Amino acid sequence: MNNDRQRQTQFIQQLLQASKNPQPLTPNSPQGLGSAPVNIALSKYWGKRDKVLNLPINGSVSISLPGLGTETVLKPLQTGQDKIVLNGEQLGADVTFAKRLSLFLDYFRSDACPAFTVETVNSVPTAAGLASSASGYAALVLALDDLFGWQLPKTDLSLLARFGSGSASRSLFDGFALWHRGEQEDGMDSFAEALDSHWPEFCIGLVKVDTKEKAVGSTVGMQQTVETCDLYKSWPEQAERNLQTISQAIIEQNFGTLGKTAEHNALSMHATMIATWPPIVYWQPESVAAMQIVWQLREQGTEVYFTMDAGPNLKLIMQAKDQDKVRNAFAEHGTQVDFILPFAE
Amino acid sequence: MNNDRQRQTQFIQQLLQASKNPQPLTPNSPQGLGSAPVNIALSKYWGKRDKVLNLPINGSVSISLPGLGTETVLKPLQTGQDKIVLNGEQLGADVTFAKRLSLFLDYFRSDACPAFTVETVNSVPTAAGLASSASGYAALVLALDDLFGWQLPKTDLSLLARFGSGSASRSLFDGFALWHRGEQEDGMDSFAEALDSHWPEFCIGLVKVDTKEKAVGSTVGMQQTVETCDLYKSWPEQAERNLQTISQAIIEQNFGTLGKTAEHNALSMHATMIATWPPIVYWQPESVAAMQIVWQLREQGTEVYFTMDAGPNLKLIMQAKDQDKVRNAFAEHGTQVDFILPFAE
Repeated sequence: MNNDRQRQTQFIQQLLQASKNPQPLTPNSPQGLGSAPVNIALSKYWGKRDKVLNLPINGSVSISLPGLGTETVLKPLQTGQDKIVLNGEQLGADVTFAKRLSLFLDYFRSDACPAFTVETVNSVPTAAGLASSASGYAALVLALDDLFGWQLPKTDLSLLARFGSGSASRSLFDGFALWHRGEQEDGMDSFAEALDSHWPEFCIGLVKVDTKEKAVGSTVGMQQTVETCDLYKSWPEQAERNLQTISQAIIEQNFGTLGKTAEHNALSMHATMIATWPPIVYWQPESVAAMQIVWQLREQGTEVYFTMDAGPNLKLIMQAKDQDKVRNAFAEHGTQVDFILPFAE
Repeated sequence: MNNDRQRQTQFIQQLLQASKNPQPLTPNSPQGLGSAPVNIALSKYWGKRDKVLNLPINGSVSISLPGLGTETVLKPLQTGQDKIVLNGEQLGADVTFAKRLSLFLDYFRSDACPAFTVETVNSVPTAAGLASSASGYAALVLALDDLFGWQLPKTDLSLLARFGSGSASRSLFDGFALWHRGEQEDGMDSFAEALDSHWPEFCIGLVKVDTKEKAVGSTVGMQQTVETCDLYKSWPEQAERNLQTISQAIIEQNFGTLGKTAEHNALSMHATMIATWPPIVYWQPESVAAMQIVWQLREQGTEVYFTMDAGPNLKLIMQAKDQDKVRNAFAEHGTQVDFILPFAE
């Protein structure tokens, strides 16, 4: 067992010590169910300080989108390979998605449960800028908790989800979530937790620019940035400061500060990608056109901001009262916006 | 006289000590002529360390474009205000361009020559991404030298041109030019000089995206970047390193290294603008479309790179042999490219 693998196994074992099941890798129900929303980072995660345990260089804050996400059913399988079914279609073992999932499941195999059937349904297009890997790993971790009867608190489950995909740690929660950078080498303090703020006016607008698969995956992208982007050296300090400002603005429900800081933060993250070599430009011509509509709306007095992840799509940060103005402005350019109210009753 | 004005006057006086005319502000011919090319920075200038003397935070390297630039005729005027004629049209004294020119000419007035007639013709669209202010101030400084009979060396004239507009220092030269950052507080060592490299294969392609006036002028833009962009803190170090790499690549005529470093440098400068608040995004949708054509050409094996200034237009860095391939690739998208061979006979 090499050193990386050893650190990973230790991490899992340490986590499972808090399990209510004395034999945490023995299923105590016929199947486990998990369901988790996608989340949009308002203060971004870009860059790992530890690739083995998936520890971030900086903390991040997100909002979960109810109604968009992943539902997963997990069943023990007595023999053979994992059977992975995505949106009703069984995947070959050589498909990247299936391979990655099976590697993650390796940490939870035992004589009692050597393999798994994973049936997972995404209500968002895979790899299209809405991070389905986040809701996917969060749902899987919830399904594992259910199957094995761990009854772990969500903050602990966020550590497990993080191990699968960084941003998945934030998808354990509805509403706003804060994923802490953490300081410890063992990664046990880099968990996510809910930021308590019920904000009915808070609204996300999804501007669909392009739903093709991404050219550069975010794991590879952030690695290239850390390695070749000089400007990235100044990113962690900005990211940490933005995180504080945004967390405070969420608690105070100060919309202007939240929107402004989130847009600046997203553009700065994209700036580090653009200044990477070879350049990582997730923007499409339509992304720039959409930005220009947002800036024009602001010039005309409508307080709307945007954020962008490792893809070409814009996510609008706005207030429920401005839905008509925003819808109309984008409609003039032939672009549709879907609105989501994370705190609607 | 305030302190800024005093430093500026001292700077001019110190420069004119080398004049061959013992009375350097007395015309010794009926008119002065000046002509200078526009230049394109291959390693960018973005940020001033001294606004009063126009001293840059980092040095830069450029290529001049023969046939595109400014021709200026300067005549003494005995009475009244300056008369400023741009492309055959006399400008009102309240036009920004005329005001800026008159402020610059203030340093060269005397009883013998209290005002000037300036007739200036640009063969490039004003403020369209090809920096006509660079060729404009270079041509004006050459016309001043001619009118007053200073016979100053071009490196000295580059100091004067810099005083009018930073990038103008590089427009005193044909071919490649290096504008030194300098170290001295009095600005006397922040001059430009020719980089000696005759390179007939070296080719610039002008991709015209948009020739509207710029939204944010570069002086204001760089100031906002220096003040609000965290990532900018890491820029000077990159800029200085890129400058060394590009200067060396010019001397060695190493095209790949030159192109790669120049594109990375330009994207990094734009990254600092994008990470400024409010954001400065000179890119138009068509800019991103043009970048994608360049990257596709490279994927197909054609060694073509791009640079961009404080505007939406791309300037291709390429070799003469690839003109057909590049022309055709852009023509497929309905975009025209003008080719310039800086070292053609």
